[in-house]
Amino acid sequence: MKLAQTRLTIIGLGMMGGSLAAALKGRCHHITGVDGRRNVVKRAAETGWVDESTDDAASALSTCDLAVLAVPVRASLGILKRIGEDLPRPPRLLDIGSTKVQVLNAMRTLPPEVDPIGGHPLCGKEAAGLEAADGRLYREANFALMPLSRTSSETRALAEEMVLALGAIPITLEEERHDRLVALTSHLPYLLAAALVSRAMNVAKQDEMLKQLLASGFQDSSRLAASNPTMMLDILLTNHEYILAELEGLQAELDAWRKLLSRNDETALAQRLQGVRQAKIHLNSGHG
Amino acid sequence: MKLAQTRLTIIGLGMMGGSLAAALKGRCHHITGVDGRRNVVKRAAETGWVDESTDDAASALSTCDLAVLAVPVRASLGILKRIGEDLPRPPRLLDIGSTKVQVLNAMRTLPPEVDPIGGHPLCGKEAAGLEAADGRLYREANFALMPLSRTSSETRALAEEMVLALGAIPITLEEERHDRLVALTSHLPYLLAAALVSRAMNVAKQDEMLKQLLASGFQDSSRLAASNPTMMLDILLTNHEYILAELEGLQAELDAWRKLLSRNDETALAQRLQGVRQAKIHLNSGHG
Repeated sequence: MKLAQTRLTIIGLGMMGGSLAAALKGRCHHITGVDGRRNVVKRAAETGWVDESTDDAASALSTCDLAVLAVPVRASLGILKRIGEDLPRPPRLLDIGSTKVQVLNAMRTLPPEVDPIGGHPLCGKEAAGLEAADGRLYREANFALMPLSRTSSETRALAEEMVLALGAIPITLEEERHDRLVALTSHLPYLLAAALVSRAMNVAKQDEMLKQLLASGFQDSSRLAASNPTMMLDILLTNHEYILAELEGLQAELDAWRKLLSRNDETALAQRLQGVRQAKIHLNSGHG
Repeated sequence: MKLAQTRLTIIGLGMMGGSLAAALKGRCHHITGVDGRRNVVKRAAETGWVDESTDDAASALSTCDLAVLAVPVRASLGILKRIGEDLPRPPRLLDIGSTKVQVLNAMRTLPPEVDPIGGHPLCGKEAAGLEAADGRLYREANFALMPLSRTSSETRALAEEMVLALGAIPITLEEERHDRLVALTSHLPYLLAAALVSRAMNVAKQDEMLKQLLASGFQDSSRLAASNPTMMLDILLTNHEYILAELEGLQAELDAWRKLLSRNDETALAQRLQGVRQAKIHLNSGHG
């Protein structure tokens, strides 16, 4: 099946789902947007990004060729469970939530007429909701696809075609590896930003001057602290073992810095600063 | 003395000093740029931002009304020591390095004919050197001024006039308070970025896929890891006690997260996520 012939249903018209609709408008045969919030359904119709918008997930699932779940991870898990029970079974199903092990485990229990595949676009922003949606969001981002052993090559090809239509770059990996690595590349940075902001807030309560000394370095370092709390809660709860391991790894790094600072070890500090800068340059170069 | 009548000498034509010259061109009577690197002296002349560029700090200090030290902190400390010894004594002296307690202590021992004041513009970027200089760098940034008890009101007024000419906002505080607060707002974010990058680099060595999963969140969180190593080394060595205290405060925050994650405490996590987001919004609002 080709994307141009596909009747697409997007469940969840937040920032990610809305951006998906905006980017795929005119590239599919038909797009139905689904959201439980009536005002979002209404606004989605006004954007022109969807051919149809509704709060009726059942009818939208029963008439599509491909359903995309663009909701927080635990909401996805709830929908996957219901597709095994009382909801209609879409022939193909892609989930684009931020953690994947629990989602793929739930997909393995889906009825055989559903052909599921996992996905995770490596893009986003802190602003949440349809107002923050932007059809250019996915451009040049890596888009991880995680097929199951049951996933057909046709559904895999359709998912890849969709990723390319978004202007994104399809990459394939296993869900355990994905969740382990994003714990470091995405969830740990959130927790560091959160810890930094909490600490700054506590100090700002005692010393108003702190706010005058926040420059762009602090604002960039703490940008992720403004992330959507619902989305982050689901991420933390569905990936907490890998995240805990990364917190330990990070604390070991901070301990190493603390030791060098405690003894004012100029030579070792200088070496470490150079190494960090080189590593940052190396990691930037790998970023699509 | 007014800025328009001032013969200004800027010692150090890196990113900060170069940007200062670019911003003040045409606003002073005369600008001399000083750098120990011959190629920088040559390039500075080509920019047109300085009326004169030289590697001869002594002659530039002997003919100015105001000298600005725009070099790494320990280089400033070396110059301040030499002004008490073998270098000419400028009538007014402003240092714009990132940490201030040690610099102001050194200023207190300057000969009485020098009228010194401490400063720290809350702006910057990772790119170093004259090539990265930009006359707009200081615009809308807070610029902390730290007068000593010996600083004359005339020098204080001249420094404020210069800050305003840069498009920056003058704020005044004590050097201890400054160093304590920037340990949190600036130096701790650097160490978190560095720790994150070291950890990511270690994992990337074992799993090449990691680099494919670096999205904008990681890149922003780790941006400061690319900071100029010479500048950062001086910062870490001249402010290590406050930085160590901030590392402890941060580890306490991370421990709190770890506990909540370990017991998958949904209610407490949800509350904390909301609180963090509110705090981030509050801290953003205080940013000039």
